[in-house]
Amino acid sequence: MSIDPAPILAAIKFDENGLVPAIAQAHDSGEVLMMAWMNADAVAETLRTGRVCYWSRSRQGLWRKGESSGQLQTLKSFLVDCDGDTLLLKVEQQGVACHTGHRSCFYSEAQSDGFREIAPVITSPEELYGQ
Amino acid sequence: MSIDPAPILAAIKFDENGLVPAIAQAHDSGEVLMMAWMNADAVAETLRTGRVCYWSRSRQGLWRKGESSGQLQTLKSFLVDCDGDTLLLKVEQQGVACHTGHRSCFYSEAQSDGFREIAPVITSPEELYGQ
Repeated sequence: MSIDPAPILAAIKFDENGLVPAIAQAHDSGEVLMMAWMNADAVAETLRTGRVCYWSRSRQGLWRKGESSGQLQTLKSFLVDCDGDTLLLKVEQQGVACHTGHRSCFYSEAQSDGFREIAPVITSPEELYGQ
Repeated sequence: MSIDPAPILAAIKFDENGLVPAIAQAHDSGEVLMMAWMNADAVAETLRTGRVCYWSRSRQGLWRKGESSGQLQTLKSFLVDCDGDTLLLKVEQQGVACHTGHRSCFYSEAQSDGFREIAPVITSPEELYGQ
């Protein structure tokens, strides 16, 4: 999948920091995997290459998802919401989306005594990132 | 569903504006319906009542989803991500989630010539909000 970024970028409303939130959802199971941020360069690279690239706010740089862990996201569909200020990426997730080794970053559910983990670690962080 | 907000609020990392992004997903179909923002009051009300309440950044007030349109969201599960700074709400959506009358706010898909609508209007805005 490769899409010309120009008309897409023109339609997205980036915030005052030049960023837009992007939700990644497994295209097959529908599981919500993670939410991260994109700047214009990350959107353009994702659309051109078909491999999802975010903007890391902590590292202040492009974050090519899976670059260090091998857990790539291949773009299947790229959607924007009615306000133009949030993205939904339907992706094929290789392995796990979360750096903790959970399939999804949303593995903690509110229960009467606080958040509780409701999903297992699939791949240990040691396996993902080496020792 | 009613959950004590105190231990949940303590575990959420609100941003510099006191807000946290919240993704709403249909608990049955898995469809991602919308993304909006919550402050601590909105989180507490949602957990106490089981009816989803956001924070409207444009109106700077609590936004009880469905208050004017009748399209309520009933909370089924309340999750936080690994960083504690994004919420995922699994909800039972009454009718449509989007003020445009689409079921989901994500009805525009990137194609070679720009964004194109790929989902129909289910209920007209006139029907949702009156004339």
